[in-house]
Amino acid sequence: MAHLLSTSCSIKLSSSHRPLSQPFRQCPTKCLTFFTLGTSKSPFKRFVLQGGTQQASCVVRATVAPISQETPTQSSSDSRQKSSEPSKPKRVMVIGGDGYCGWATALHLSNKGYEVAIVDSLIRRLFDQQLGLDSLTPIASIHNRLRCWRSVTGKTIELYIGDICDFEFLSETFKSFEPDAVVHFGEQRSAPYSMIDRNRAVFTQHNNVIGTLNVLFAIKEFRDQCHLVKLGTMGEYGTPNIDIEEGYITITHNGRTDTLPFPKQASSFYHLSKVHDSNNIAFTCKAWGIRATDLNQGVVYGVRTDETEMHEELCNRLDYDGVFGTALNRFCVQAAVGHPLTVYGKGGQTRGYLDIRDTVQCVELAIANPAQPGEFRVFNQFTEQFSVNELASLVTKAGEKLGLDVKTISVPNPRVEAEEHYYNAKHTKLIELGLEPHLLSDSLLDSLLNFAIKFKDRVDTKQIMPSVSWKKIGVKPKTLAA
Amino acid sequence: MAHLLSTSCSIKLSSSHRPLSQPFRQCPTKCLTFFTLGTSKSPFKRFVLQGGTQQASCVVRATVAPISQETPTQSSSDSRQKSSEPSKPKRVMVIGGDGYCGWATALHLSNKGYEVAIVDSLIRRLFDQQLGLDSLTPIASIHNRLRCWRSVTGKTIELYIGDICDFEFLSETFKSFEPDAVVHFGEQRSAPYSMIDRNRAVFTQHNNVIGTLNVLFAIKEFRDQCHLVKLGTMGEYGTPNIDIEEGYITITHNGRTDTLPFPKQASSFYHLSKVHDSNNIAFTCKAWGIRATDLNQGVVYGVRTDETEMHEELCNRLDYDGVFGTALNRFCVQAAVGHPLTVYGKGGQTRGYLDIRDTVQCVELAIANPAQPGEFRVFNQFTEQFSVNELASLVTKAGEKLGLDVKTISVPNPRVEAEEHYYNAKHTKLIELGLEPHLLSDSLLDSLLNFAIKFKDRVDTKQIMPSVSWKKIGVKPKTLAA
Repeated sequence: MAHLLSTSCSIKLSSSHRPLSQPFRQCPTKCLTFFTLGTSKSPFKRFVLQGGTQQASCVVRATVAPISQETPTQSSSDSRQKSSEPSKPKRVMVIGGDGYCGWATALHLSNKGYEVAIVDSLIRRLFDQQLGLDSLTPIASIHNRLRCWRSVTGKTIELYIGDICDFEFLSETFKSFEPDAVVHFGEQRSAPYSMIDRNRAVFTQHNNVIGTLNVLFAIKEFRDQCHLVKLGTMGEYGTPNIDIEEGYITITHNGRTDTLPFPKQASSFYHLSKVHDSNNIAFTCKAWGIRATDLNQGVVYGVRTDETEMHEELCNRLDYDGVFGTALNRFCVQAAVGHPLTVYGKGGQTRGYLDIRDTVQCVELAIANPAQPGEFRVFNQFTEQFSVNELASLVTKAGEKLGLDVKTISVPNPRVEAEEHYYNAKHTKLIELGLEPHLLSDSLLDSLLNFAIKFKDRVDTKQIMPSVSWKKIGVKPKTLAA
Repeated sequence: MAHLLSTSCSIKLSSSHRPLSQPFRQCPTKCLTFFTLGTSKSPFKRFVLQGGTQQASCVVRATVAPISQETPTQSSSDSRQKSSEPSKPKRVMVIGGDGYCGWATALHLSNKGYEVAIVDSLIRRLFDQQLGLDSLTPIASIHNRLRCWRSVTGKTIELYIGDICDFEFLSETFKSFEPDAVVHFGEQRSAPYSMIDRNRAVFTQHNNVIGTLNVLFAIKEFRDQCHLVKLGTMGEYGTPNIDIEEGYITITHNGRTDTLPFPKQASSFYHLSKVHDSNNIAFTCKAWGIRATDLNQGVVYGVRTDETEMHEELCNRLDYDGVFGTALNRFCVQAAVGHPLTVYGKGGQTRGYLDIRDTVQCVELAIANPAQPGEFRVFNQFTEQFSVNELASLVTKAGEKLGLDVKTISVPNPRVEAEEHYYNAKHTKLIELGLEPHLLSDSLLDSLLNFAIKFKDRVDTKQIMPSVSWKKIGVKPKTLAA
């Protein structure tokens, strides 16, 4: 118990004591569940500790803030489910909470007073092992990450390890945690990974589509007012020759007008899987009244957030390899180790970008302002547009200020994509909800470059060049050796 | 051998004889493969018979027409792959060739001189067993169907029984049959089936999406010039308040113009699976140069085609139940047994319809006029639009002429769909290719009603009412008892 609460308490054992409220905390190993019995106004709490078949009750001075203060509450639109209960923190399940965006988000939400559970199969770590890749930063195991978070902040994040494609597992997590919101990062999220071979293409679409279907069924069955916050991607839209709107477009055609889903033109089996998800979710909002927000996220850069900075064991992963690394992060690592910046083709490819500190802010804004029942809401989640050439130029200038000799090379584009194109995507809805962007600045680039320099001895330069071709993908299972 | 060719020949055994050409015929049991060695102008053919590790050659008087006459040939756009070979029939693989549309299509193509192979897992027959359903018409086993076809016409249709989600099986069929075109009907094709329970929703999307991905990979790997003719559905478009175009729409927005995929609004997990397929196929056309035609088919009615009429063992299936039966076919069976016509809700639901004789015609037109490499071509495959109320009215009138007392009831709509809406879908591309529609007429309705009356003793009236609700679908596996 000492690792859960730094308190002393007198324990009265009882085999018949039943908890009277929602579980307040649960030990990650599931050996103990904590239930709050006191009133929310008192800093003294009475807990029931449930371990195996035995239960104990104790009164402790809580080391966390009283639940009624400084914690997010149910929104008014949740009143159907919670009307008679006192205000209490929202319970947020972060699926994929051990990954790059998921880990930063889980900590941020926990820090903001949400009750957080991470659901993760940890398969992202297996991908690294199988492909011989590694994060630039050393990252702790999920168990040590969560122990560290608890010891630093006194806050507990529950952990459910399993695969959401396994509906029996997912059902149990829903019944146990009873989420008010689900943030779903739990997908294979790399376009190149999905283009390695047939097996991985099929895995990506199966894993992402079926996992999301299961989440939708779990919400319908067990928590019908739960708000689904689903991570999509700006890549679903492709690069049309018209402005990209947020999810929908009003079309006048042959004298009639309708507002329809914005046409999608995804360019990898991964991006396609997100299009499939969006279509499936939209249907369930209409047919079942699911409330959902689709966050079409741009390319994320950066590594530090307020929470991951608190302790080195909370450090986030930073991918620089050709499979999982994203454009700006890759360029900074390349600059740090003296590798030429790898621009694919002409470098005119333009996309939306955002700082990982804005990812966590956006997700919180979506949770705090949930979609209505039956609403399928789409936000374009990025803050600025850059072409690859512009990014290379920015990194070159920032590197030179630090005394680095930064060169750029054009490598044959392994993808099938337009290298010069119109691109203008709207992104006002999250700003309207209160997003305060961290725009890409010299100081951020300095910080990211210095971060990369700090860990440059960990860089495996063989992982830098692109190794996956959109055109050469074959049916034989492929092993990418380091 | 007698069941394959009614010829006499002298056989010279040889263990080293290698075939010099494409396999001409293959025994369905795979014990023998026939290779043509003679010139296409001679009615006398030399065959190599391959059985196990032994081979034999023989000269026979072919009982089928000389190959160069009356048979479809490679189109000019196939010249890259076949330029130096003499003209010979196109080889068409019909995936799902034991089903309602697939069986009629396979026979039609065989009758028109194509070399046809059916690939089917036969799982459609298992669905009937599991749900306690049956075709109105008694249908022969696929083995007896093909034996009958051979005895009636002298034409052989090859048979590969297996699941295209099993890529090892699909690879072998591609390598063995070497198709010039693949017609892909091999999907779970019922919207209500996909809405029975979570298991079947997941099965439908997995089966359809992964099966189609496998077909795309097989084409890329083994037959890169092979034309994919994929059955989509008009249901992919939903019921927008603007005219529905054939696959693409030109949009002018904020002063810029682009032609983009027509927005999709599917309304069941089945219809969604077809949207996913369309998006996946479009990507592979662009990335790999796959040539594909997406046939967005309307609701098919009718049962007889020229070929299924040839023998009672060739009879097609006719579904009248609430899961697999389609609107007009169901109404005719209902009228025949004196059951009120079951209009869902207000009955203003309008869709495109076509006669099954036009299904087979459309598929042949698509094959005879293949898409170009890299082209993702979309045809809306229907001939007329009707609302459900209009269909009920037509069947009522036709029934009265036959002395039937036909009533109509409105039943609560088990689906989530607009019951009154604008609907105007374009369908000119197949007409431009030469489609001569069989429009819905009094004589067709008479014939279909009489057909239903002939088999009315086989009707299980408990299967008529809808049993699957779009809103009530749950996570527990559901058994639908008769």
